[in-house]
Amino acid sequence: MKIGVADTTFARVNMGAIAVDEIRRHASVQIERYTVPGVKDLPVACKKLIEERKCDLVMALGMPGGVEKDKLCAHEASQGLIMTQLMTNRHIIEVFVHEDEAKDGKELSWLAEQRTREHAVNAVRLLLYPKELEKMAGTGQRQGFEDAGPARR
Amino acid sequence: MKIGVADTTFARVNMGAIAVDEIRRHASVQIERYTVPGVKDLPVACKKLIEERKCDLVMALGMPGGVEKDKLCAHEASQGLIMTQLMTNRHIIEVFVHEDEAKDGKELSWLAEQRTREHAVNAVRLLLYPKELEKMAGTGQRQGFEDAGPARR
Amino acid sequence: MKIGVADTTFARVNMGAIAVDEIRRHASVQIERYTVPGVKDLPVACKKLIEERKCDLVMALGMPGGVEKDKLCAHEASQGLIMTQLMTNRHIIEVFVHEDEAKDGKELSWLAEQRTREHAVNAVRLLLYPKELEKMAGTGQRQGFEDAGPARR
Amino acid sequence: MKIGVADTTFARVNMGAIAVDEIRRHASVQIERYTVPGVKDLPVACKKLIEERKCDLVMALGMPGGVEKDKLCAHEASQGLIMTQLMTNRHIIEVFVHEDEAKDGKELSWLAEQRTREHAVNAVRLLLYPKELEKMAGTGQRQGFEDAGPARR
Amino acid sequence: MKIGVADTTFARVNMGAIAVDEIRRHASVQIERYTVPGVKDLPVACKKLIEERKCDLVMALGMPGGVEKDKLCAHEASQGLIMTQLMTNRHIIEVFVHEDEAKDGKELSWLAEQRTREHAVNAVRLLLYPKELEKMAGTGQRQGFEDAGPARR
Repeated sequence: MKIGVADTTFARVNMGAIAVDEIRRHASVQIERYTVPGVKDLPVACKKLIEERKCDLVMALGMPGGVEKDKLCAHEASQGLIMTQLMTNRHIIEVFVHEDEAKDGKELSWLAEQRTREHAVNAVRLLLYPKELEKMAGTGQRQGFEDAGPARR
Repeated sequence: MKIGVADTTFARVNMGAIAVDEIRRHASVQIERYTVPGVKDLPVACKKLIEERKCDLVMALGMPGGVEKDKLCAHEASQGLIMTQLMTNRHIIEVFVHEDEAKDGKELSWLAEQRTREHAVNAVRLLLYPKELEKMAGTGQRQGFEDAGPARR
Repeated sequence: MKIGVADTTFARVNMGAIAVDEIRRHASVQIERYTVPGVKDLPVACKKLIEERKCDLVMALGMPGGVEKDKLCAHEASQGLIMTQLMTNRHIIEVFVHEDEAKDGKELSWLAEQRTREHAVNAVRLLLYPKELEKMAGTGQRQGFEDAGPARR
Repeated sequence: MKIGVADTTFARVNMGAIAVDEIRRHASVQIERYTVPGVKDLPVACKKLIEERKCDLVMALGMPGGVEKDKLCAHEASQGLIMTQLMTNRHIIEVFVHEDEAKDGKELSWLAEQRTREHAVNAVRLLLYPKELEKMAGTGQRQGFEDAGPARR
Repeated sequence: MKIGVADTTFARVNMGAIAVDEIRRHASVQIERYTVPGVKDLPVACKKLIEERKCDLVMALGMPGGVEKDKLCAHEASQGLIMTQLMTNRHIIEVFVHEDEAKDGKELSWLAEQRTREHAVNAVRLLLYPKELEKMAGTGQRQGFEDAGPARR
């Protein structure tokens, strides 16, 4: 089994290194790293990780900026990541942390690390323990900030 | 005949279990379940249900959050689900319940269950009884809240 | 020659029946009918009409609701219908009537019927009499409400 | 060499006839004409011009209306035209004149003619004289209204 | 190794010439130039550079105008550029400078040149020195204006 980790030089936190660290805690898999300039370069990087470097699943890590133009870039990247999955029949776990989700650099660092680690666990589950996810269906899981939890009836 | 049921851990109601229950009331078909983290993971999950696990039709169940960023995720997921259908020539019944459609957790639970059950019936009709849908053409059907009904002349 | 007619149970007017009626007035062609729950189910229905039921052209009939979420559904459906055409090299005449285009149920019924009938004629022209459309190029045709007409110089 | 000219009955100016006239002034090429109802019908029309009628390049001419729904149609058409180019490896020169770009019918006629003629020249250059375009790189060319010109340093 | 440089006559700065100059400072590669009218013509131009002229990577250079319609064109072009990459498994470095990012022509010239040069270096790194990018992962790199730098903890 091989997991790809694609990240960017644009991000202000080394999300790729965090993902690699967390994956290693949960699974003995090979890891392929690929760093590109920005989020719009991620889709083809993920496709190359899957098709040329034979990854079974990829994490796509990015940190879009806070202005309108950045939001649009993130949207385009997300559309590309979904298309990549459809062209390859492989999961790509998108982990985007928007700069304006955090109130300062300290919270941004914390959020990027937390969300990356929680999604790294999701990646391992999808690849190796899919039944664990089924048990968590509809429980209001969130990555980074607190879980929403199940809706009270 | 085999129906796939794809849902998420992000949702705050176990829509997948509800779908399975309702499908079983109306048809003797095999059911394949697949749970992923969020709605953006649904398109490739549905494609894998169709291509790898041989489902004839899939229900894609999700509960997007209420803020702008969540709306965009749901939009991207919907585009991906349409593309998946075009790549496979199979129907995917999208059942999304937006958190802000309900005024509290109780209504959210009710709405998620109601819409899922009504769409499960649609799924069975599409697969087994397409002529029933033709009889209902243009009658203003809604899933969850009350039907709009035919336009008064 | 075979024309497909895809419509929805969501619509509040039986646009499919109107389309069938109007096509029959103008051409002796086979007609295949396909009713789905909503507009987002139309793209794959049209693709199946073209590829599995051998239609040469399809009319895709829908009536999106008036709120923002409905507009987005219609947009996603339209994108899917364009992609379907590109994947099949067949025309799909999209006939969408937005609920908020009309001031009440009566006008909505009128508009849905009028637009469907005028587009049914367009469908027949595209398939059988393409030169007729060329003669109408740049004349400001509209379907439903009054024609805009050519720009006055 | 063969150039396709696709236009609409929705437009209020016969942009197709203008394009044909201008192309003939600059090149001895075959021309194929194709008129469809509206801009959303243009992508597949262009694809058919390229694949079935063997055009080497196509001009796609349209005049979207001024309200929000029309803007969205134009956007969907543009996305489809780009996808068509990627599926065929042929250029499609999109010439859209938005009704609200002009203050009255007279200016609209002028603008539609001017922009169509200038883009017809671009079409000929792309097909026959690509080096001419390279010489104009970064010079702030516009089609219709006045050129922006190079940025002053 | 061959790098493609696609640019436009719409841009108000000769970004293509700047890219060629900067690439030559950092790598001995063949360069193919391709100039088109506007940003929406870039996706197929890049695809032709990759498939017909055998480029291993392409830079797509454009300068969208400042009004809403221009923003939408840029969005459509970006989506097309991502799709092109997915269809070819080659990177396309998008370098778009929005006219309204700069306060006057002088700053616009400076920004277009600076961003183009910095991305030309990224292009060379992606093609020849991918490990250099990995060392810069998460360091808040920007092209044109000042780097954001890593988030302070």
